[in-house]
Amino acid sequence: MVKIGILGVGTVGASVAKILEENGDIIEARAGKKIIVKSGVVKNLSKDRGISIVLSDNPLDVVDDPEIDIVVELMGGVEEPYALVKKALENGKAVVTANKALLAYHRYELQEIAGDIPLMYEASTAGGIPVIGALRNGLSANHIESIQGIMNGTCNYMLTKMINEGAQYDDILKESQELGYAESDPTFDVGGFDASHKLLILASIAYGLDAKPEDILIEGIENITQTDVAFAKEFGYEIKLLGIAKKVGEGVELRVHATMIPQESMIAKVDGVMNAVTIIGDRVGETMYYGPGAGGDATASAVIADIVDIVRGNQGPMLGYKKGLESGLKLLTPDNIVTQYYLRLQVDDKSGVLATITSTLGEFGISIEAMLQKPTKNEEIAKLLFTTHHCKESKMQDAMTALSKLDVVHGEIAMMRIEK
Amino acid sequence: MVKIGILGVGTVGASVAKILEENGDIIEARAGKKIIVKSGVVKNLSKDRGISIVLSDNPLDVVDDPEIDIVVELMGGVEEPYALVKKALENGKAVVTANKALLAYHRYELQEIAGDIPLMYEASTAGGIPVIGALRNGLSANHIESIQGIMNGTCNYMLTKMINEGAQYDDILKESQELGYAESDPTFDVGGFDASHKLLILASIAYGLDAKPEDILIEGIENITQTDVAFAKEFGYEIKLLGIAKKVGEGVELRVHATMIPQESMIAKVDGVMNAVTIIGDRVGETMYYGPGAGGDATASAVIADIVDIVRGNQGPMLGYKKGLESGLKLLTPDNIVTQYYLRLQVDDKSGVLATITSTLGEFGISIEAMLQKPTKNEEIAKLLFTTHHCKESKMQDAMTALSKLDVVHGEIAMMRIEK
Repeated sequence: MVKIGILGVGTVGASVAKILEENGDIIEARAGKKIIVKSGVVKNLSKDRGISIVLSDNPLDVVDDPEIDIVVELMGGVEEPYALVKKALENGKAVVTANKALLAYHRYELQEIAGDIPLMYEASTAGGIPVIGALRNGLSANHIESIQGIMNGTCNYMLTKMINEGAQYDDILKESQELGYAESDPTFDVGGFDASHKLLILASIAYGLDAKPEDILIEGIENITQTDVAFAKEFGYEIKLLGIAKKVGEGVELRVHATMIPQESMIAKVDGVMNAVTIIGDRVGETMYYGPGAGGDATASAVIADIVDIVRGNQGPMLGYKKGLESGLKLLTPDNIVTQYYLRLQVDDKSGVLATITSTLGEFGISIEAMLQKPTKNEEIAKLLFTTHHCKESKMQDAMTALSKLDVVHGEIAMMRIEK
Repeated sequence: MVKIGILGVGTVGASVAKILEENGDIIEARAGKKIIVKSGVVKNLSKDRGISIVLSDNPLDVVDDPEIDIVVELMGGVEEPYALVKKALENGKAVVTANKALLAYHRYELQEIAGDIPLMYEASTAGGIPVIGALRNGLSANHIESIQGIMNGTCNYMLTKMINEGAQYDDILKESQELGYAESDPTFDVGGFDASHKLLILASIAYGLDAKPEDILIEGIENITQTDVAFAKEFGYEIKLLGIAKKVGEGVELRVHATMIPQESMIAKVDGVMNAVTIIGDRVGETMYYGPGAGGDATASAVIADIVDIVRGNQGPMLGYKKGLESGLKLLTPDNIVTQYYLRLQVDDKSGVLATITSTLGEFGISIEAMLQKPTKNEEIAKLLFTTHHCKESKMQDAMTALSKLDVVHGEIAMMRIEK
């Protein structure tokens, strides 16, 4: 019999306890041993959680309990769970965590501390989709060329509604909050931060890159309008919030942002709250992993998969390698990203404006790929929408600054990146 | 250092050797040890394979070599590789195989023989997609509700061409043969047999079912015409050759056949030679795994993933459980399948015929869901195309026999199953 203790018995923790009980027969057959929840830790002992496990409000009751074999960390936060996971590992206990923030900041220290003790985290990235296992084990023969992930269901739900139903951003945000898909402060989701944590975890497995959220480009979906949606449709794109890791020469781009991607690509077809991660390996080619990225039971499914793996005796190294990948690959700073861009400007509706815009872009070595001009309610102002050929991010940022200083350009310039 | 020997150095075997060499740096970092190919076995020693490994034409030179740690079986066939894999396991060697036919017939004996010795087979099903790992490890918390797989790239390529380009079956088969996607005798692919082997492997992991190809319903794509394609489009379906495993009460349906599926489902969007497997778990919900189902490098990617897993010390039981799942689930015989059906008939184009057809169907408890009547070149004959509500396969077979005996019905009745 294997005994587990759960730090943080919220929605996911309660699902873990419930599934281990209700699917106990098949889980025991697969793990080879019976798995039971010995105890759990919560902040508020008086709240009824509808489950019958022993609860404490002291995490050490789990972490220091000699009878507990596996500690499941589901409490959220960064420094408090870090201290507790560290202690659990030092006590020789295997750890399963669903905590993406913990890993975004402390995965390399934890790998060091864990050593040969299993520390698993399938549920941290893309919820119920076993993408950590796929990348860490299933694609181990490959140099990873790129990863593109829809890893935030809130953003994908909102973008799907904006694209399929013509909803405005503010309206659909409000609806998402009412449905419980978005938090009252939605920044962590819609600003791309949640997706960035997951991207960093995948990038560590793929490239051995030690980056933190503040080291990479992170933008959200807040500035997308129906004008952008209409342009995307006309030119054959979907708009998705993607976490992107891409090998370019000896460097790796890591970035999270709203992205125009070709409608015919598989990941463009992923709608609603669903998540998906496309991974291109140098030998296998393109593979994609699709499923629910959140939800108590789906996340618990991934947590229990890790528990079963540990009970079976599997203990692939935490990040997929022991001594570092020594790949020689370096993180490219955001300035050095090279991609295609979409811009939306408001300009004077008069002759010669287009020449001014294109010559300004030309000064930064940027050329236009496709363009659309649309009238506005104000007869003297037109909307200019266009995509560019590949250029460096720093050049684009400089060009946008220069464009915004032109007399013929009014208001904010909206920009989106394109991946083909 | 870990030494492997390869039984059958064809396209995949040569790719395994090449990738272990060319990606040796990253594979060693991930496995924790250097992996080298010590020797290989081929039928014809005189053929140049462009690789520099020691070759023999005697399989025992690999299987009995005390220096070899892992035997990789890529020779194809059933009984000869069975005897060799058995011997390798008895010699204490771990085995990696890509041989779906071997597993379709001998997976339970092999599980028994292997015991605690790793026997892995990621490459046997859906090529480079790590779907065995996903199902065996990633979804271990779940009772599996259903599996739907596009697991034959030849069929999917042909159906995609028929649907997107209006190609006729015979023309596209010829083209596929010229491109090397289809064999000169294409029956194994287009008849659904290849997919059935893969389905049986997945069904063993999911349900513990011990079935052989001859126990299940296997049909191919040979009878599909542009008339069917047009009907499918009009009613919102794609046509795919699916391997289907479905839990129904205490039974499991296993079947391979051309299937009409809703255009909006994720698996309907998988085009060309690509494979995909959708798995629905009772806790995680729907997940899908997409990628290349064939090709030397893609298949070798899966073979090497298994080798790395073994070198890391992972040894989850072969089928995902040690003693049998004891799920109590039984294989439903083909007669007991319950689904919706599409029928295509040629009938006399005169009044009263429709009433005759529907009343004949009614005698078997079958009711029509949607219908389309089309003229033919012969003014006296019409094509009648329709879908039915759910009914039992045996009733449908009896109804088809009864229909074909009607004076107003001419020629063969074509049938396809529908999954929603």
